[in-house]
Amino acid sequence: MIISQNIIDDHNAKQMAKHKTLFDFAKNETEGVEKIIQRLIDFQVAIPSWALGTGGTRFGRFPGGGEPRSLEEKIEDVGLLHKLNKTSGAISLHIPWDIPTSPKEIQTLAAQHGLAFDAVNSNTFQDQPDQALTYKFGSLQNVNKAIRKQAIDHNIEVIKHGIDLGSKSLTVWLSDGSCFPGQLNFRKAFENTLESLQEIYAALPSDWKLFVEYKAFEPNFYSMTVGDWGQSHLYASKLGEKAFTLVDLGHHLPNANIEQIVSLLMMEGKLGGFHFNDSKYGDDDLTVGSINPYQLFLIFNELTHGTQPNNAPFELGSGFGWMIDASHNIKDPLEDLLQSVEAIMVAYAQSLLVDSKALEDARESNDVVKAQEIIQAAYRTDVRPIVAEARLRAGAALSPIGIFRDLKVRNVLIGERGLKTVATGL
Amino acid sequence: MIISQNIIDDHNAKQMAKHKTLFDFAKNETEGVEKIIQRLIDFQVAIPSWALGTGGTRFGRFPGGGEPRSLEEKIEDVGLLHKLNKTSGAISLHIPWDIPTSPKEIQTLAAQHGLAFDAVNSNTFQDQPDQALTYKFGSLQNVNKAIRKQAIDHNIEVIKHGIDLGSKSLTVWLSDGSCFPGQLNFRKAFENTLESLQEIYAALPSDWKLFVEYKAFEPNFYSMTVGDWGQSHLYASKLGEKAFTLVDLGHHLPNANIEQIVSLLMMEGKLGGFHFNDSKYGDDDLTVGSINPYQLFLIFNELTHGTQPNNAPFELGSGFGWMIDASHNIKDPLEDLLQSVEAIMVAYAQSLLVDSKALEDARESNDVVKAQEIIQAAYRTDVRPIVAEARLRAGAALSPIGIFRDLKVRNVLIGERGLKTVATGL
Amino acid sequence: MIISQNIIDDHNAKQMAKHKTLFDFAKNETEGVEKIIQRLIDFQVAIPSWALGTGGTRFGRFPGGGEPRSLEEKIEDVGLLHKLNKTSGAISLHIPWDIPTSPKEIQTLAAQHGLAFDAVNSNTFQDQPDQALTYKFGSLQNVNKAIRKQAIDHNIEVIKHGIDLGSKSLTVWLSDGSCFPGQLNFRKAFENTLESLQEIYAALPSDWKLFVEYKAFEPNFYSMTVGDWGQSHLYASKLGEKAFTLVDLGHHLPNANIEQIVSLLMMEGKLGGFHFNDSKYGDDDLTVGSINPYQLFLIFNELTHGTQPNNAPFELGSGFGWMIDASHNIKDPLEDLLQSVEAIMVAYAQSLLVDSKALEDARESNDVVKAQEIIQAAYRTDVRPIVAEARLRAGAALSPIGIFRDLKVRNVLIGERGLKTVATGL
Amino acid sequence: MIISQNIIDDHNAKQMAKHKTLFDFAKNETEGVEKIIQRLIDFQVAIPSWALGTGGTRFGRFPGGGEPRSLEEKIEDVGLLHKLNKTSGAISLHIPWDIPTSPKEIQTLAAQHGLAFDAVNSNTFQDQPDQALTYKFGSLQNVNKAIRKQAIDHNIEVIKHGIDLGSKSLTVWLSDGSCFPGQLNFRKAFENTLESLQEIYAALPSDWKLFVEYKAFEPNFYSMTVGDWGQSHLYASKLGEKAFTLVDLGHHLPNANIEQIVSLLMMEGKLGGFHFNDSKYGDDDLTVGSINPYQLFLIFNELTHGTQPNNAPFELGSGFGWMIDASHNIKDPLEDLLQSVEAIMVAYAQSLLVDSKALEDARESNDVVKAQEIIQAAYRTDVRPIVAEARLRAGAALSPIGIFRDLKVRNVLIGERGLKTVATGL
Repeated sequence: MIISQNIIDDHNAKQMAKHKTLFDFAKNETEGVEKIIQRLIDFQVAIPSWALGTGGTRFGRFPGGGEPRSLEEKIEDVGLLHKLNKTSGAISLHIPWDIPTSPKEIQTLAAQHGLAFDAVNSNTFQDQPDQALTYKFGSLQNVNKAIRKQAIDHNIEVIKHGIDLGSKSLTVWLSDGSCFPGQLNFRKAFENTLESLQEIYAALPSDWKLFVEYKAFEPNFYSMTVGDWGQSHLYASKLGEKAFTLVDLGHHLPNANIEQIVSLLMMEGKLGGFHFNDSKYGDDDLTVGSINPYQLFLIFNELTHGTQPNNAPFELGSGFGWMIDASHNIKDPLEDLLQSVEAIMVAYAQSLLVDSKALEDARESNDVVKAQEIIQAAYRTDVRPIVAEARLRAGAALSPIGIFRDLKVRNVLIGERGLKTVATGL
Repeated sequence: MIISQNIIDDHNAKQMAKHKTLFDFAKNETEGVEKIIQRLIDFQVAIPSWALGTGGTRFGRFPGGGEPRSLEEKIEDVGLLHKLNKTSGAISLHIPWDIPTSPKEIQTLAAQHGLAFDAVNSNTFQDQPDQALTYKFGSLQNVNKAIRKQAIDHNIEVIKHGIDLGSKSLTVWLSDGSCFPGQLNFRKAFENTLESLQEIYAALPSDWKLFVEYKAFEPNFYSMTVGDWGQSHLYASKLGEKAFTLVDLGHHLPNANIEQIVSLLMMEGKLGGFHFNDSKYGDDDLTVGSINPYQLFLIFNELTHGTQPNNAPFELGSGFGWMIDASHNIKDPLEDLLQSVEAIMVAYAQSLLVDSKALEDARESNDVVKAQEIIQAAYRTDVRPIVAEARLRAGAALSPIGIFRDLKVRNVLIGERGLKTVATGL
Repeated sequence: MIISQNIIDDHNAKQMAKHKTLFDFAKNETEGVEKIIQRLIDFQVAIPSWALGTGGTRFGRFPGGGEPRSLEEKIEDVGLLHKLNKTSGAISLHIPWDIPTSPKEIQTLAAQHGLAFDAVNSNTFQDQPDQALTYKFGSLQNVNKAIRKQAIDHNIEVIKHGIDLGSKSLTVWLSDGSCFPGQLNFRKAFENTLESLQEIYAALPSDWKLFVEYKAFEPNFYSMTVGDWGQSHLYASKLGEKAFTLVDLGHHLPNANIEQIVSLLMMEGKLGGFHFNDSKYGDDDLTVGSINPYQLFLIFNELTHGTQPNNAPFELGSGFGWMIDASHNIKDPLEDLLQSVEAIMVAYAQSLLVDSKALEDARESNDVVKAQEIIQAAYRTDVRPIVAEARLRAGAALSPIGIFRDLKVRNVLIGERGLKTVATGL
Repeated sequence: MIISQNIIDDHNAKQMAKHKTLFDFAKNETEGVEKIIQRLIDFQVAIPSWALGTGGTRFGRFPGGGEPRSLEEKIEDVGLLHKLNKTSGAISLHIPWDIPTSPKEIQTLAAQHGLAFDAVNSNTFQDQPDQALTYKFGSLQNVNKAIRKQAIDHNIEVIKHGIDLGSKSLTVWLSDGSCFPGQLNFRKAFENTLESLQEIYAALPSDWKLFVEYKAFEPNFYSMTVGDWGQSHLYASKLGEKAFTLVDLGHHLPNANIEQIVSLLMMEGKLGGFHFNDSKYGDDDLTVGSINPYQLFLIFNELTHGTQPNNAPFELGSGFGWMIDASHNIKDPLEDLLQSVEAIMVAYAQSLLVDSKALEDARESNDVVKAQEIIQAAYRTDVRPIVAEARLRAGAALSPIGIFRDLKVRNVLIGERGLKTVATGL
């Protein structure tokens, strides 16, 4: 389904008077609003190819209809999202779920939708039908050298696919770990994993980045071999300057202070990017900002006002991996993604409102009450009109979900693709 | 695969000298050892039909071979376990995964293996292929009366299957809940669920029990409509005297004191039974006693020494539901179950060693140090020879896992059933 | 220190133009704004007498200056807060820290400040210098009848003090529990506690309420005898219709869904009130809304739109206990309280913006995306001008913290009371 | 109170027959029992000077009697413990609570009791009466350079006291952090802390070690500036080869896998030592092994069988810091310490029983069931007779708590010191 610019413009026209009222007020109240809008326009969040279909749990899956049946249809779906919000201008592929038959044609298709290819993702957490050796007991950590080799080769193959498509980074998420005390020699598992990563790192083009993602638990339920930021950082440090830590918001123990982790990784020049989602209990993979939007804001506050080791400003979106990684179990996946992107833009905009000079002054004088007043003043501001204005100027819809529903997009997709579809890879 | 008594006796004969040394020592050191052995012999733990195959997570499943392909083969597998440990004398069926074509024949088969039918389990957390309405947004809680009706009817059908087989209880585990703030009217969800449960309760034979299982999260990630013992107890109280709370060890928030919950439910006469497993993070469904064996012991300490409202002793195994509910993702399911049963028997035996009179005296005088000394003295005792002796007297193997491996049972099963099997229901 | 109305009016006058711009916009955008403002004006949150001084942890305490040295000065401090925000019109006393020498005079003083007396609080978690028997091993749960008696008598004495002052409720928070497995007979502890509560309940005037507060852990670190809402509800049910559950936001296990608990307690007619604060790890007693303001909003959403058993609307503030219970370790206590009250008013105002009719419609049609849109639309709205307007109309300051700092209130208090003060009871 | 060797010998004589029976059996069943006994004899755990009195929480403290009133009496108490178990041969002092007037005399006194001086501990988490600047907003992290300087100087002074006494290490536990979002610039806090630690490190004698302790939360409730092992490791790496990470068992987020952290720190050559205790919820500081003894065993399993970077065996007790750090709120402190040491020795002995060769074989063949069997076989063994034999050979009591009670030690101490004592520092 292709939505033409006219349709979007018409939709916007109907809401323009209302928007103008809201934005005019916001504009008056917001210092530096033009600069903020520009930064919002510039910011892009990648959509992972696996997020376009209905997800599920080990207990079951309740699919909707009209899910993409091919890589081409996945690109169409991301193109549609990007058309609606002009903030989803990249797609992150998963190998082997999304191996393109013709990379050229896929690149052309993506270009037509204005999409770039973000990080490519390897998969050694599942066995593929034609796979020689099993990852039941881990991949890069495995005690069996042949299995490690197989997993290394797969990652190198993923890099090749990424080169073909124009990606510039590889995200490695390992489910390696153990389910029972005694099962694993933690040290050997770490050393094997490091050695394997070194081989993958050696195959990385010079302008690529390697993102080492960590996760506290699941699918292993006793230990994870890349289990926290400390371990990921240890790997990334030993690997070299092209290796970075990737933070998935749902991959922490209860109550972890993620924004502090983000700040320290920036300090060390080792923050690689994010998988955005939200959660209440574990890796729940819920819509971004649906459970704890203040935490999201606090993370963006670090990103927006933090710097790299050399005190160079940290630029969101330039070479870093910003991706949504959620599982849409009970919502329409495209609506869910639109809500997630909106939540990210709201948090980003709020963080841009923080008076960082005043904040540092309050901190320097230990004025805790004032520091809180400053950041909460930004957080309590209604930035939706500013975010909408950024969309409007970029040619997107004032209300992405509104137009999605008005146009009955899902029904159209079901008409095109059928009611009983299963997105590849799920 | 049928293991004859000779084979077990031969296996035991080889280990008898060693066992005799160990048991003779234990016997000398243990007051009332005969009574303890008798209680161990009497105690039986049900095996759920779904635990006989390899489990998995939402990320993948790594099946082994020789899994049971039918209800008959599941009963054979439990029969085999029971042959080896004489403590697994019951099977708990799941509907619709295990609907018997001929209940009579199935009963006969079970009887040949010395197995009774424990609680039957309904399933409204998945959609079945031929199902009219979806449980995507809940079953007994659903805002749609027709869906609630469908789920009620299913539960009543499960009761009928149970009657056919000789079961005496129904376990209702609901995945009902919500994934997002705002999604659910908590109160209506509770009221709908209660009303639905009342209709099911009304269909219960007079000598049956209804077990209301609670779970803190998953597969819903914001709220669960039977989310903790408090809610389960509220339902059970409103339903009537045949309704009880069922405790699954993995269904709690982090750090919950489960043994206290058990004690209070006993006090109220509302403890229905257990789903045994172990976990470190969430509902990890690991081998019983593999993560925190002391907690398991403390729970058994409550069970062994606690009483019902009228101060009648709480008798383990008489009418209560004691079941293992684990997911064997990386172990051989049968070996895993043997380890789980062993861990339960060890904990039970240790709890029988607790000098409850001395413990109450220490409590009455606030002698905290002594209270700890008393229960840790029991816990630190090596009760394996006593548990083995109970098995020996019951005709089971001194070392169930030892004989399982010596006989290469898994290989035999693979020979009989094939390498690529998937247990029904998984 | 007494702040005259002129001073507040002058302060407001300077900010009026700005406020008018903001409020005029909010007024235009908000349906039913007048009704909302009235409800905000009507809502009052009690200040506990122990929150007026600097709190601390077991590791240390870093006092500020000018803390109230007597009950009279505590009332002055609450009066000052109420003067500034007109929302802190009640004080909650703690016995024995705040025993009035002359209840009459204290009542007169409070009345001069426009303050009512909220729930009185008993203390059996500490030993007082002149106390006969120790609460080291619990109070109402104690195995020693004489200790239970002492604790019961203390609670009855607290009721008497409350009657003298015009209070209408007693809050019982018990630290009773155990630190070690084995220490406690859970059941006897429950039964002793129930029996003790029954004696206290019997001494309650007919128009009084008894609030049974629960807490998951601390100061006991293994079990708490009123450990969760389920236990509190069990006590309250057995006690009778004057007994209710009190919810302290910090008294839960990690990740608990507090808003669902609130909804169920309302359903059962057993919600008694709140102790407001915020926390990240345990009972951190931080400023309300400083860690997870969305959770606070979700709780108010239940309160605002929920009903009692008979479907009578739940009226905030009429007979229920709404109190801040925080510990001001590093902020000026009065500023901290002003921030807490502001956070509560913001959350309450946002909840009043929720279109509950549309929300119920979305729920009835399982439109999860829309349900989230509706509640987040309310939450993302900047309600500060509406809250400020409510204050303005009530005669309070547009910016309570602003005027507090402009007037250098703390310096004045230090001048009056000295730099080295310790608020009684801390 | 001095307990003569005769008294211990007499006490042992009475229990010898029973012990001989138990130990003879254990000896027969245990391979390499003599080597195990020797390692148990060699292992020593330091007692911190602050653990000899009754601890408390922010809610209260219920002191016992006969607590040590001076450094001399603290040394006597540790001497007494060491007399009873011959495993508590070191004391860890806290400055400024334990500044010796005459280091020489204190050293002589300690030597008389057979005690060495373990790590010295600095204190920048409290303000001392005569202190110029406050640590309310942190010490080594403070935005104020003068406050950092004061804290650095204090640490250097602590080193000097340690040198006088013969200590060889400094433990730095910082309560530095923040209570509220926005309060702290995380990066500046880290950088300030690092710079401060570097100055302290520079003052360290060449044969000393610096232990950097981490803690997830409390007394700061939003962020801690040395919050997890990753941060501690980052400091220790940047400081140099004399800096190490110290692990306190209670200083983690819920569900953390501490044994994996231990293994990785050993791999990096950065494990410095332990603060032993147990906990269920937070930093509960309960008796070692009272809540989760299996976890303690798993940690010892890593220590016993792990190696350093160069594959040199990790030797428990040689230069590493092994200390109990518990808070005895409701038990007699000395009895509590005896229970803690016993739990440590039991866990250590069990870990020595693990067949590490067989375990590695099982791991190398991914035999998860066998790996669990191997470690649980060791854990389920009753090692108390072996631990008792080690004590016997070292000249200690077969039953330390037994003799403590038989001799009514506490009563004697109360007679000597009085009923109303408060150990210095608490």
